[in-house]
Amino acid sequence: MKKMSGIPTETFTPLKTLCPAALPDRPVTVRGMVHALRKLGGITFLTLRGPERVLQCVFAQDAALRDVTEECAVALTGVLRAEERAPGGMELAAETLTVLSRPAAPLPVPVSKWKLDLNLDTELALRPVVLRNLRQRSVFRVQEALARAFRDTLHADGFTEIRTPKIVHAGAEGGSNIFRLDYFGRKAFLAQSPQFYKQMMIGVYEKVFEVAPVFRAEKHSTPRHLNEYTSMDFEMGFLDSFYDIMEVETRFLQNAVKLLSAEYAADLARLGVELPGVSAIPVLRFDEAKQLAAEEYHRPIRDPYDLEPEEEHNIGRYAKEKLGSDFVFVTHYPSKKRPFYAMDDPENPKYTLSFDLLFRGVEVTTGGQRIHDYQEQVDKMLARGMHPEEFESYLMIHRAGMPPHGGLGIGLERLTARLCGLDNVRRACLFPRDLSRLEP
Amino acid sequence: MKKMSGIPTETFTPLKTLCPAALPDRPVTVRGMVHALRKLGGITFLTLRGPERVLQCVFAQDAALRDVTEECAVALTGVLRAEERAPGGMELAAETLTVLSRPAAPLPVPVSKWKLDLNLDTELALRPVVLRNLRQRSVFRVQEALARAFRDTLHADGFTEIRTPKIVHAGAEGGSNIFRLDYFGRKAFLAQSPQFYKQMMIGVYEKVFEVAPVFRAEKHSTPRHLNEYTSMDFEMGFLDSFYDIMEVETRFLQNAVKLLSAEYAADLARLGVELPGVSAIPVLRFDEAKQLAAEEYHRPIRDPYDLEPEEEHNIGRYAKEKLGSDFVFVTHYPSKKRPFYAMDDPENPKYTLSFDLLFRGVEVTTGGQRIHDYQEQVDKMLARGMHPEEFESYLMIHRAGMPPHGGLGIGLERLTARLCGLDNVRRACLFPRDLSRLEP
Repeated sequence: MKKMSGIPTETFTPLKTLCPAALPDRPVTVRGMVHALRKLGGITFLTLRGPERVLQCVFAQDAALRDVTEECAVALTGVLRAEERAPGGMELAAETLTVLSRPAAPLPVPVSKWKLDLNLDTELALRPVVLRNLRQRSVFRVQEALARAFRDTLHADGFTEIRTPKIVHAGAEGGSNIFRLDYFGRKAFLAQSPQFYKQMMIGVYEKVFEVAPVFRAEKHSTPRHLNEYTSMDFEMGFLDSFYDIMEVETRFLQNAVKLLSAEYAADLARLGVELPGVSAIPVLRFDEAKQLAAEEYHRPIRDPYDLEPEEEHNIGRYAKEKLGSDFVFVTHYPSKKRPFYAMDDPENPKYTLSFDLLFRGVEVTTGGQRIHDYQEQVDKMLARGMHPEEFESYLMIHRAGMPPHGGLGIGLERLTARLCGLDNVRRACLFPRDLSRLEP
Repeated sequence: MKKMSGIPTETFTPLKTLCPAALPDRPVTVRGMVHALRKLGGITFLTLRGPERVLQCVFAQDAALRDVTEECAVALTGVLRAEERAPGGMELAAETLTVLSRPAAPLPVPVSKWKLDLNLDTELALRPVVLRNLRQRSVFRVQEALARAFRDTLHADGFTEIRTPKIVHAGAEGGSNIFRLDYFGRKAFLAQSPQFYKQMMIGVYEKVFEVAPVFRAEKHSTPRHLNEYTSMDFEMGFLDSFYDIMEVETRFLQNAVKLLSAEYAADLARLGVELPGVSAIPVLRFDEAKQLAAEEYHRPIRDPYDLEPEEEHNIGRYAKEKLGSDFVFVTHYPSKKRPFYAMDDPENPKYTLSFDLLFRGVEVTTGGQRIHDYQEQVDKMLARGMHPEEFESYLMIHRAGMPPHGGLGIGLERLTARLCGLDNVRRACLFPRDLSRLEP
C-alpha cells in the first residue's frame, strides 16, 4: 500500500542552494521559468527564474532551444561554473533541456526588464504577470520578512497568536467607514480592527497578537489608503506604562532589520533599500512635535488638536534632520481624536496615553493604553453619547476584571511601502482594493 | 529626550521561567490574575493565573487579602519553594500583595473549575470570560502550534508567505454559499478561498502559502461547519506528481506533532490529548476506500461518485482499525465533484489528480493538482457551461505560462477540533460565526 512518509525526494537542485564558492563537480538538474532568452554570436543565454534568484544558463548550440520561449517551465541539466559577469557569480553550461509547460501567448509586458516603469493602473491590472519581474516580487519578500519578524518577536516575548472574526455585529472604530454585509438576513459588518477581540483575550493569555486583514470603507482615494489591508496587531497586559508597548514595537523593528539583513539581502539590493537605524527611536509629545515642526518649517499651527498630513510629514522631516531618525514616536494625542476605549492621561485628561509611530513622515502605527476599569469605560461611553448596552459582550471583560493593558496596530502595507520607498501604498499590496479596484 | 531602545526592563519574573529544579533563593515578584482563592485553616491559597501556567501562592495570615477577589490583577512578592502537591511542583510563600485592578462583578461562570460542562450556547455566548478557564484556553494554544508548524514547515521548504484579498469580484469555488457585499455601489463577494490568487503567485515565487480567514455562506448548521474559518493554504509549482503535495502536508503534520510535544506539553496534558502517529500516512483511492469501508462495515454504496459523511467516518474507522492510522489520504476524487481548475487524471478523466485528508473520520484538507495549460483550462470551463471571459485576470496566468502545480487548503479549526477531541468545530474557534451567531 502507498504511504506518505514526509521525506523529501527532490529530483532537482534548488537554485538557492547553489553557491559559486562550492560548485558541485557533477552535472546538476535545475528547474524554473525561462525569464529571458538572448542570442549572442553562436551562443544562447537563457536566464532561468527560480523563487529567490535567477541563474544564467548557456547553450553552445541552439538546437535544444528551438521551441523554447520566455515563460516556458523547463528542466535543465548541465555543469555549473564560476562566471563573474553572471548574476550570483556563476552560470550553467547547459547540456539538456526539457520543456515542462508552455505559455499560450507572449507576455503583455516585458517582465524580464530591470525596471518596468508602468503607470500604476497598468501595473495593478496586470499584477498576476507583472509580479514575475524581479524587483516587483522583491517588495513582497520584504513584506514577508516584516510579518515574520513581527511574529517571531512576539512569540519570543510570550505572546499568543489569536484569530478573531472578520464578520462582526458592530464596528470597533466607529464612524461611517465600515462595510455592510447581509448575514443570513441580518445586518453585519466587516471588522475595521480586531480591537474588541484582542482586548477580550488579555484576561486569557495576558499578551496576544494577530496578523490579519481589516476593512475600511474609506470613500476617498489617497496614495496611503487601502480599503482592505493587513493589520499587525498586538495587545499586552500588566503594563507599567504605555511606553512598554512602544518598547515592544521598537524590538520588533530591530528584529525586522536583523532578519532583512540576514535573509533578504538580495531583495533589498534589487530594490536599492537602505535599512533605517532603529537602535533608539525618539519620542515627542503631540503638542511638542507640532510646535517643533511648525517653528522649524515656518508653518503655523491651524488646529491644536489635529495632525494634518503635512504636519506629519514635517515632524518626520524634523526627526530625520534634527534627531537623525527615520522613525519618531508621537505620544499623548488629544482625547477627542482617539477612540472611546483610549485611556485618558490622568495628568491631563484632554490628552490620552496613546501614540503613533511615524516612519519617514507617515503614520504606520497607532497604539496606546486602554481603559480597563468597568465604570471608567462606561462613563466615557456615556460622555460620548454611546449606548453601553450595545457593547455588552465587550464590556463583559471589564466587568469580569482586566489588568492594565494596551496595544497597537501596524499597517503592514504602509510599513512595506515606506521601507521600499514606494510612492503609493497600492504598490505594496499584491492585489489592492480601492474605490475603483475589485480585480484582479 | 526620551528614546525607545527596545531593551526589556521587566520588573517582575514571568511565571514560565520558574522551575522547581532551579528556584531563586531571593524573593521574586510575580504578576497575574487571581484565578482562585481558598481558605484552609489559618492559611489562604491564592492561585495566580499567568499566560501559560498557574502558580499556587500561600498566605500565612490573610490581612493582605482582605479586599482581594477572584479576577483581580495582582502583583505578589514572596519566596518560591518546592511543593510537590502544588501545580508545577512549587509554590510562593507570599509576603506582599498589590492589587493592580479589580473586577466590577463576580464572574458569570466559575472559570477556575477544572471542567465547566456548559452547554454550547452558554459557552459561546460567554466566551470572553469562559476562555479564562485553563482547559478552554489550552485548545487555542494547540491551535497556535498548528499554525506555527504550518508556517515553519513551509518556510523551511522555500515557500513564500502571501496575503491575498478577501473582498473579491468572483467566487473561486462557485455555488451559492458566498457572502455578498455592497462595495461602493458595486457587487462584491467575500473570498471562499484564496485559490485564484495563490495560483497567480506560482509563476512568481514557485511555492507560496497563506494562513487567513475564508468565508462560506453555508445555510445549514452542522457540528463541522463554520461560516468563517481559517484556511491554511499552500500551492507549489514544478510537481513531479500530485503526491508531492501530500508529502509536504505529511511533513507539516510531523513537525506539528514535534512542536506540540516540545512546547505545548502542558496544554496537551490539560486536554488529555494523545498525539497521533504521523510517521507514515496510508493512501487509498476514492473508489477503493469506498469499497473497503462498505465491505468492512456492511454499508452498501449508494452513490459511486460521492462520499457521504458516514462513509468518511467509516473510512476513518477502517484506517484506524485495519491500517493503524488516525490519518488517511483519499485520492482520485470524481471529476464532477471537484472544481473546474482540478486536473483530470490522464489515465481516467472521470477522476481527478486530487485528494482529501481524513483525520479520525473527518475531512480536514482538500487538495490536488491544477490545470496549468491555457487551452485545457478554457476547454474545461466551456464544458461546464462557464464563461471564460469572466475569469480574465485568472486566465492571464495560464496564458502567460504556468509550471505544473497544485496545492491544498487545511481547515485549521477542524484540525484543532479533531486533535483535541471536541465534539463541535465551534469549540475550536474563538468567536465562531454560524447561522445564528454574530456575537461576541
